[in-house]
Amino acid sequence: MALARHAYGKSEVRVVKITRTPGRHVLRDLTVDVALEGDFSAAHTSGDNSALLATDTMRNVVYALARTHPIDSLESFGAALVEHFLEAGPTVTRVRIDIAEHPWERLGDHEHAFQRGHGGTRTATVAGEGSATTYEAGIDDLLVLKTTASGWEGFVRDEHTTLPETDDRILATIVCARWSYASAPEEPEWQAVRDTLLHAFADHYSPSVQFTLNRMGEAVLERHPGVERIHLSLPNRHHLLFDLQRFGLDNPNLVFHATTEPYGLIEGTIERGAQ
Amino acid sequence: MALARHAYGKSEVRVVKITRTPGRHVLRDLTVDVALEGDFSAAHTSGDNSALLATDTMRNVVYALARTHPIDSLESFGAALVEHFLEAGPTVTRVRIDIAEHPWERLGDHEHAFQRGHGGTRTATVAGEGSATTYEAGIDDLLVLKTTASGWEGFVRDEHTTLPETDDRILATIVCARWSYASAPEEPEWQAVRDTLLHAFADHYSPSVQFTLNRMGEAVLERHPGVERIHLSLPNRHHLLFDLQRFGLDNPNLVFHATTEPYGLIEGTIERGAQ
Amino acid sequence: MALARHAYGKSEVRVVKITRTPGRHVLRDLTVDVALEGDFSAAHTSGDNSALLATDTMRNVVYALARTHPIDSLESFGAALVEHFLEAGPTVTRVRIDIAEHPWERLGDHEHAFQRGHGGTRTATVAGEGSATTYEAGIDDLLVLKTTASGWEGFVRDEHTTLPETDDRILATIVCARWSYASAPEEPEWQAVRDTLLHAFADHYSPSVQFTLNRMGEAVLERHPGVERIHLSLPNRHHLLFDLQRFGLDNPNLVFHATTEPYGLIEGTIERGAQ
Amino acid sequence: MALARHAYGKSEVRVVKITRTPGRHVLRDLTVDVALEGDFSAAHTSGDNSALLATDTMRNVVYALARTHPIDSLESFGAALVEHFLEAGPTVTRVRIDIAEHPWERLGDHEHAFQRGHGGTRTATVAGEGSATTYEAGIDDLLVLKTTASGWEGFVRDEHTTLPETDDRILATIVCARWSYASAPEEPEWQAVRDTLLHAFADHYSPSVQFTLNRMGEAVLERHPGVERIHLSLPNRHHLLFDLQRFGLDNPNLVFHATTEPYGLIEGTIERGAQ
Repeated sequence: MALARHAYGKSEVRVVKITRTPGRHVLRDLTVDVALEGDFSAAHTSGDNSALLATDTMRNVVYALARTHPIDSLESFGAALVEHFLEAGPTVTRVRIDIAEHPWERLGDHEHAFQRGHGGTRTATVAGEGSATTYEAGIDDLLVLKTTASGWEGFVRDEHTTLPETDDRILATIVCARWSYASAPEEPEWQAVRDTLLHAFADHYSPSVQFTLNRMGEAVLERHPGVERIHLSLPNRHHLLFDLQRFGLDNPNLVFHATTEPYGLIEGTIERGAQ
Repeated sequence: MALARHAYGKSEVRVVKITRTPGRHVLRDLTVDVALEGDFSAAHTSGDNSALLATDTMRNVVYALARTHPIDSLESFGAALVEHFLEAGPTVTRVRIDIAEHPWERLGDHEHAFQRGHGGTRTATVAGEGSATTYEAGIDDLLVLKTTASGWEGFVRDEHTTLPETDDRILATIVCARWSYASAPEEPEWQAVRDTLLHAFADHYSPSVQFTLNRMGEAVLERHPGVERIHLSLPNRHHLLFDLQRFGLDNPNLVFHATTEPYGLIEGTIERGAQ
Repeated sequence: MALARHAYGKSEVRVVKITRTPGRHVLRDLTVDVALEGDFSAAHTSGDNSALLATDTMRNVVYALARTHPIDSLESFGAALVEHFLEAGPTVTRVRIDIAEHPWERLGDHEHAFQRGHGGTRTATVAGEGSATTYEAGIDDLLVLKTTASGWEGFVRDEHTTLPETDDRILATIVCARWSYASAPEEPEWQAVRDTLLHAFADHYSPSVQFTLNRMGEAVLERHPGVERIHLSLPNRHHLLFDLQRFGLDNPNLVFHATTEPYGLIEGTIERGAQ
Repeated sequence: MALARHAYGKSEVRVVKITRTPGRHVLRDLTVDVALEGDFSAAHTSGDNSALLATDTMRNVVYALARTHPIDSLESFGAALVEHFLEAGPTVTRVRIDIAEHPWERLGDHEHAFQRGHGGTRTATVAGEGSATTYEAGIDDLLVLKTTASGWEGFVRDEHTTLPETDDRILATIVCARWSYASAPEEPEWQAVRDTLLHAFADHYSPSVQFTLNRMGEAVLERHPGVERIHLSLPNRHHLLFDLQRFGLDNPNLVFHATTEPYGLIEGTIERGAQ
């Protein structure tokens, strides 16, 4: 028997950093995961911990670097953590830092008061192996909905098919996206990619979630040259037209039953290169 | 033995209504709970269901009334449901309708595309008994945070007290509020009350969550004459200053550990009347 | 304006206590909530905290009493906390302690290894005001299901009724119960009441959730003289017979679609006294 | 630009199947996910849905096959679904079926009454591509805890290390395991693997989560020749000794603060083959 790929680290380190400038506090609210790969087999097989950092130490480092690093960009903070752990962990060969940023929105132009924002949770993943560093960004929990301009027609009909065709339905999804950059991105890039995703979701008649997924991915690659590849995962949160005929009422696409399960799940990656 | 207070109904009816006007679809995304009280003892004790509406029927009614009612105000929709069930349920003496509205925000000035909004979940409760109808509104899951202008000093110190005093801390909470109206409110009233709550959260130095709770409640009663009484429940989501001295670093209220449990919980009701 | 009823405390204090006896460690895994009532108006209205215990101090007390108290019974531990805070909090008039116990089950007859148990989360609430102490116990998240011996017939049929009658359906619910004792119960009492609830759920043909609720409540009062009153809240987790006729298949109550929303909600209190 | 890997399907189909034999109903409560891979590019790029099955049809198939298949083994049910979709979906090249089984435990020897069981959620994944079929089983949410016989010593100490060493701590984790079989397993195999995991968790002094992970994995490979490889993911749910010295009390590993975040996360794969 053999120990194959293995890793360890600290997950869900909740760190909040305030930057205080006169008249304007800036707030970054992060959940950080640290994962180290390397040869830790002595700990696994003989109980020899001498090559292991405590995960508690990793937590301490996240807070310490949050103090010394400006966190002017999520990716630069992630890269600083990668660099630290590549040096600090004996026998470490690869470090992966996952950061999720929880959105806050300033109350008007208030100096220091905020409410929870919207637009999804931003993610950033920085991984380092030797001198190579990779950057991936993403978004979770971005709920979007169209009340029309969506249909589902012309699909396979077999003996188990009961769904009617429609050219007017609600389309609702919770966007989960991950995209990779060729090099460390500028801080405003994430917001720009999100805006592109939102715009592309809304700008067309959708004959299927598949079509909309592809269009959103292509829009990001077209408008953001730094993005190499994007993966989208789109659950189809079905809104079922409620049958009101039984009560003598019509229902011209007005009243729907929103469901959570089951749901369709459409996934795909769009990348640069010849089709 | 005796059956004392009892009730039944349908919970979490998920209804979405679209109102289609040229150039502008309006969307209301609701979760509705129906609860009936009355004398249902025959069902409980002898298995005689002849006085019971099926909860499935209640669900059908919610969708049917969503079609025929404009849902121009949450409270008027709730009142229509109350009126229906007071008449439809034999032996029913009291009806309570709880509605939660999930926020959506239009994408720019798009006709029919939305993203999940922010600012908390709106609630409305309408209850009817005989000819009397009561109206209660509320808000859930409104996360707010101040990076400063909050302290905690001068509290009791006994042999179990280890917390240091501070005049500069993060104050973070998840506002849960419920307020009652003397009569059916106008639709824009809810938004106005929320704005007052947000403003009052941010407009002062907070010596305690208790003080801020009272100020928020008083602000609502002062500015909104239709509100009779307000209950606030404010969990104190502690943000702990992380000790960086151990690593040779200072931490002048910049880097915090955000915690979820345990949390302080401060609750109170503010009402009109002589102090 | 006036501050009406108000309270504060610490919620979700997660305390685990091990009792080590040779060959057999005993584990109690608790979440404790402390809530104090009294006259705390100075803090609310003038920022004077001199009558307030820090909620952090309450947390410390929970851990300290977990050390000095045997926790041989949840209720006696709760009563010790009540007594402490009635004395420690200046101006406190009422203390409420809520305890939830997370179940663990010993792995075979192992001295010190456990897996998460089943049978629901035990709750205990002890409240003290002056010299009076009240005891309430309960259970949360107890999922039970019958594959037959449940029906729903003879209910009101009106113009919004579409549900067919049935004398054979799945009955599934998540029992939430709360019962009160006349005086502090013995530790094994909780387990005995749970067994009664499970037995009464299963021992009859159920013509409605209402009937089963009443039978479960009556069984507890009959067999447990120390219980004064019991409240049951039973969500009806509908299992819908899936229509397979469309595919040329019968479905004699064999294949069901389990749903989570909407759900019926049946609630009632059974108490001692002449009917 | 090019569409790279893509897939679609239906997630969270909730199907309950009862098998009624005299005196003993058997219940299987499943959540099924269907995912199809193949060339669906026409739908993505030109809105041509003619090669797509509706995900609603996939749901129908799950219920129909639940009727015609005995579900005597999760894996054989999964294989039947794989076979169906490889034939039904035009252009489909690969099908993956994920099944989660929710545990129920019979109430005593009752014919048809159950309560939610324990011991984690069973998972089964069957994937088919051409004539090749692979079988993977797993377990989620298996909480286990040892009150002693666990330590953490001899790890790296650097300038960010503050954690003391210990040879007596609580070890608590939520086992997530996935293992692969060379061929379709017999139905009782899953239970046997789970028993091995539980036994191996408890049978030794643990110098680290890494060591225990490796021992659990090796035990499975040793005792279950049909298992080719196992991946374990073990979050370290830290239980922190609460400092009671401040209150004049000792705490010889008796009273702990149970935490949920942050947590250590230890992952590894053990496979057959020369070490």
